[in-house]
Amino acid sequence: MTLNDLSTAVLAATLSLGASFAQAQADPLPSWNEGATKKSITDFVARVTTEGTPDFVPPSERIATFDNDGTLWCEHPIYFQAAFAIDRAKQMAPQHPEWKTTQPFQSLLDGDMKTFFAGGVKGLLAVVAASHTGMTTEEFSRSVNDWLPAARHPRFDRPYTELVYQPMLELLAYLRSNGFKTYIVSAGGIEFMRPWVEKVYGIPPEQIVGSSGVVEFQLGADGKPVLMKMPKIEFVDEGPGKPVAINHFIGRRPIFAFGNSDGDLQMLQWTMAETGARFAGIVHHTDAEREYAYDRESHIGKLDKALDEGKAKAWTIVDMKVDWKTVFP
Amino acid sequence: MTLNDLSTAVLAATLSLGASFAQAQADPLPSWNEGATKKSITDFVARVTTEGTPDFVPPSERIATFDNDGTLWCEHPIYFQAAFAIDRAKQMAPQHPEWKTTQPFQSLLDGDMKTFFAGGVKGLLAVVAASHTGMTTEEFSRSVNDWLPAARHPRFDRPYTELVYQPMLELLAYLRSNGFKTYIVSAGGIEFMRPWVEKVYGIPPEQIVGSSGVVEFQLGADGKPVLMKMPKIEFVDEGPGKPVAINHFIGRRPIFAFGNSDGDLQMLQWTMAETGARFAGIVHHTDAEREYAYDRESHIGKLDKALDEGKAKAWTIVDMKVDWKTVFP
Repeated sequence: MTLNDLSTAVLAATLSLGASFAQAQADPLPSWNEGATKKSITDFVARVTTEGTPDFVPPSERIATFDNDGTLWCEHPIYFQAAFAIDRAKQMAPQHPEWKTTQPFQSLLDGDMKTFFAGGVKGLLAVVAASHTGMTTEEFSRSVNDWLPAARHPRFDRPYTELVYQPMLELLAYLRSNGFKTYIVSAGGIEFMRPWVEKVYGIPPEQIVGSSGVVEFQLGADGKPVLMKMPKIEFVDEGPGKPVAINHFIGRRPIFAFGNSDGDLQMLQWTMAETGARFAGIVHHTDAEREYAYDRESHIGKLDKALDEGKAKAWTIVDMKVDWKTVFP
Repeated sequence: MTLNDLSTAVLAATLSLGASFAQAQADPLPSWNEGATKKSITDFVARVTTEGTPDFVPPSERIATFDNDGTLWCEHPIYFQAAFAIDRAKQMAPQHPEWKTTQPFQSLLDGDMKTFFAGGVKGLLAVVAASHTGMTTEEFSRSVNDWLPAARHPRFDRPYTELVYQPMLELLAYLRSNGFKTYIVSAGGIEFMRPWVEKVYGIPPEQIVGSSGVVEFQLGADGKPVLMKMPKIEFVDEGPGKPVAINHFIGRRPIFAFGNSDGDLQMLQWTMAETGARFAGIVHHTDAEREYAYDRESHIGKLDKALDEGKAKAWTIVDMKVDWKTVFP
């Protein structure tokens, strides 16, 4: 290589750097309409990433936690994990002839969802136990991966993993490009999320915090160890459980947290209860046309106390209808 | 900047690259003596990091898990966390006048360690409960940080954090420079380790897996939320608990694991029970002169079944006396 070749290479590299710079200057949140909500996010990120200012936070402490159901993807008409449990139980029915005459399975198999849901959460828990336990962690993971591409949302007729919120995908990527480590902290099952979240959200399995069942180490007949999913709840990552789980898994307090329901209130309180720049955000579902509109009276994703506290404390409250240009990708 | 300046800059950059290359070629494990043990490590790393070969593992799946006590730092004459608990209980005694006449505290305060240890693990657990619970997670973390710089190991008269194994520090750094994510998976308390492991091992708090007590979210009198450490054991990360905790926290199976006792056996089994290139290592304490010599009969860090299985399955067994040029930094 001559010096001239080198110069050409440097020029090319410089031009390419210039292009990257222009790209970085482009709007990182194109699906967010301009306004106070969007500005509260970009202002916060600018504050904590500007070195030499009092609000600067070193990258290792830029922890951002997100609820999943209703915050990163849709949660109506029922939690998608409940849809999975119901579909799986139906698939498993041939191996369980006794279900034909045992509730809640009988009503489920008869398609009598009114009776099924009349049993309240108990019926659903029985179906969750049947579909989520008595198998190895790897068998369960496969069952999630088998279900996802085939299942369709009843209203939107799209795979569930396409019903993620485009503005939140952009927010996750924007935070990561600013040195944040993004986590999910969900009441959903940790093992239900791990098979697909990396592909869908760009969040690796080790950054997923969620509810869990007891798992047991067992040596199989062939001497090969397996982890068996037992029919016993271990931890419910909801409400006051969220800061506890954040402490348990991450061991650092987030500086940025996003939720959408009262089940996220304590995570938001915990995030804000420290000095320095901090951010709490709430997705308020106000868009019945493009998605759903619900808050204080909803049976799923009830947003009542957290809405009041968020307003009182001037947290960022996303008005889905107003703040989001696009909802789904 | 002229084209000539640019050429000079490129030359400088090229020279600097050359220097980095030379550095990378230098021995990354200088405290390991040449031999089969060291070669088994470097061969494994070469295999899984060479693209285009069947054994190549993408960086996201290069998970390495290490036991702590006896694997990364010394564990004799008693676990360092037990030394912490005992020292803390002594410090707390003035606030607990009843301890003067209550066992196991009485013998501890009288310096009658024979009676104290005669009570077996029960006495120690009482002292652990007193020193580890009934305070917030942040208060506990401060108590660990206060203790560490002042405490000294009875034999080596050095701070405990200096009694880490230099060859293992090099191994951690070597793996990370090859794209591995390094985790601690210890029977020690997760909250006891988190305050200091990042500085000492370069492992961040979110990559520490350990035993835990129940933690409760509480709103203080001032309305400020705190996490209280309750006097109840939540999970013991030992033996079959280790693969369970790895699955819980990381959600991926390690391809590389290192332990030193029977409490690590299931972690090693779980790591090896999958196809593809995998590595299991055991630190065998054979050096009474520079550290300690113990295995099958030891009351701490007993290595018996894992030694047999490791030999039978040709895992890497470190003979401390032979394989390590230096023990402590």
